[in-house]
Amino acid sequence: MSLKHVGKQSVALANPPSIAGHACIVGEKEGQGPIKDSFDYVSSDMRFGQNSWEKGESEMVRRALELAIGKSGKQQEEIEYLFGGDLLNQCIGTTFGVRDMNIPLFGIYGACSTMAEGLSLAAMMIDGGFADTTAAVTSSHFCTSERQYRFPVEYGGQRPLTAQWTVTGSGAVILTSEGPGPYITHITTGKIVDPGIKDANNMGAAMAPAAYETLRMHFADLSLRPSDYDLIVTGDLGQVGSSIVLDFFKRDGIELMPNYDDCGLMIFSREKQDVHAGGSGCGCSASVLCGYLLNGMRAGRWNKILFAGTGAMLSTTSSQQKESIPSICHAVSISNTR
Amino acid sequence: MSLKHVGKQSVALANPPSIAGHACIVGEKEGQGPIKDSFDYVSSDMRFGQNSWEKGESEMVRRALELAIGKSGKQQEEIEYLFGGDLLNQCIGTTFGVRDMNIPLFGIYGACSTMAEGLSLAAMMIDGGFADTTAAVTSSHFCTSERQYRFPVEYGGQRPLTAQWTVTGSGAVILTSEGPGPYITHITTGKIVDPGIKDANNMGAAMAPAAYETLRMHFADLSLRPSDYDLIVTGDLGQVGSSIVLDFFKRDGIELMPNYDDCGLMIFSREKQDVHAGGSGCGCSASVLCGYLLNGMRAGRWNKILFAGTGAMLSTTSSQQKESIPSICHAVSISNTR
Repeated sequence: MSLKHVGKQSVALANPPSIAGHACIVGEKEGQGPIKDSFDYVSSDMRFGQNSWEKGESEMVRRALELAIGKSGKQQEEIEYLFGGDLLNQCIGTTFGVRDMNIPLFGIYGACSTMAEGLSLAAMMIDGGFADTTAAVTSSHFCTSERQYRFPVEYGGQRPLTAQWTVTGSGAVILTSEGPGPYITHITTGKIVDPGIKDANNMGAAMAPAAYETLRMHFADLSLRPSDYDLIVTGDLGQVGSSIVLDFFKRDGIELMPNYDDCGLMIFSREKQDVHAGGSGCGCSASVLCGYLLNGMRAGRWNKILFAGTGAMLSTTSSQQKESIPSICHAVSISNTR
Repeated sequence: MSLKHVGKQSVALANPPSIAGHACIVGEKEGQGPIKDSFDYVSSDMRFGQNSWEKGESEMVRRALELAIGKSGKQQEEIEYLFGGDLLNQCIGTTFGVRDMNIPLFGIYGACSTMAEGLSLAAMMIDGGFADTTAAVTSSHFCTSERQYRFPVEYGGQRPLTAQWTVTGSGAVILTSEGPGPYITHITTGKIVDPGIKDANNMGAAMAPAAYETLRMHFADLSLRPSDYDLIVTGDLGQVGSSIVLDFFKRDGIELMPNYDDCGLMIFSREKQDVHAGGSGCGCSASVLCGYLLNGMRAGRWNKILFAGTGAMLSTTSSQQKESIPSICHAVSISNTR
């Protein structure tokens, strides 16, 4: 068994990489929510100055990554590997966003778990001795998602209360081998879990068992209790999914509250913003991490966070063929100390 | 600069992982081509026993991975990380194919470069000390691609002579930290290159500059000449793209022939099989690698191969929005000796 492997699904990094820079850009609705002050830039233009929503999403990716690079004190040409992906078919949000940036790219697809997946791989590339500086980026966009996955936006389709609202946002992180932190210390990589749910308007319920399995494995592998973290945050389970995760742990005699939260519940006010079960999309956990969470860690509000991105790996074709929704969750420990 | 980094875009693995198992499964047309004897299984049923082409593609992935695991002498539960992705929207070929296999999954998207990307990351995970056993898998399917990217298959649309034929095939590789080889020794990770070509029926031309850039960088970084390899093989440039790559090198005064070939030209007979410019799709380079190439290395026909997977990162949406085709190429050195 390799030295860094701990337990069944986790690794402890030998030289935890430092988060040297992070930035996030969001749309107008996100900029009206409860964590609006944590975003680097809020755009009132859903096309971000471009002539289509998709090109706007790519522009958002480009700007988030440039901002994060600027804050890291590194030059663009120093980034040795970029991990990026998004929800658009063939991940065009990322590809077109980083097209002119001249950085070696590993394209990834983890649905809404993409930031956690990219962060895992970007950290392992440094800890494995392959690079000194790496980056992870992802995005989602309400209008590009809505028309790709559901209905034309103009149609104004009704949504059930279990549905989540795709966040318009992009988050980017720059990691370096040395630095003052926060550090990526441990990683638990998820397996596909499919509880058999077929309702694409209830992805929280579909993803909850994957989140439970990865969190449970993380605690077991590393002999940790939830209270060892100042905050445990799931990707975007929303109201339905996060209550299922809390229930599952309660059955095991484990109480995740009060230091548990979900990015899908943090980014919007469900009372004031009519988002039904909460936020979702790759940009949801990415922009909450790259704004509210990492800012909070730097301010000393939390010293140790478990960031558990969740993804529902369905497509319109799989739903039309009456398939259930396979889901995944990747967990990353972020700590102010090595 | 990290120790394993060589030149600008390459790494030399400290303890090159061994390819412990490899397998490929293809469709009927591939099974009638010039390298038909190298495939592990040829199916005359394009649905692979399932009730849709997409479910058939997932079944192909599952079987290729199971076969490769079987040949590796490892158990399924010993695989610590799987890297997989495909051409279908949201990579459902992979996700549904490996859904029940209980292996930690990093979903990747590199279009037709996916096998080279997965092989790169699977090797780095072992060399970085995170795992002893990893895997990479990918697939493509003529019918699922055709109806997703182009027209209903039944429509029988005409194709220009620059178009390539999507391979129905899946390839899987199992890597281990120790073993008799062949070994993954060096990796050059590609950047996006976009020559501005907008014709989705001429992806060879769109991808050729990316292949040229990665190969050129590989030779420069590692101070190698093309003749240092017994075979240099690009992913699936087909007739148009591979002749462009040869031309580009000729302008630099470098002759890649006679030890250059392209998976898109190897898998079909252009004379007898009416595939126009050649084969393409993630399953093209994957099944050529996992059959013909690795079998040939084991038989001693070649001792050192440079496998350069190429991908065109377009989507139907990006084409409809009149965007050009960003492309990428990842190169992996495979050698019978460490």
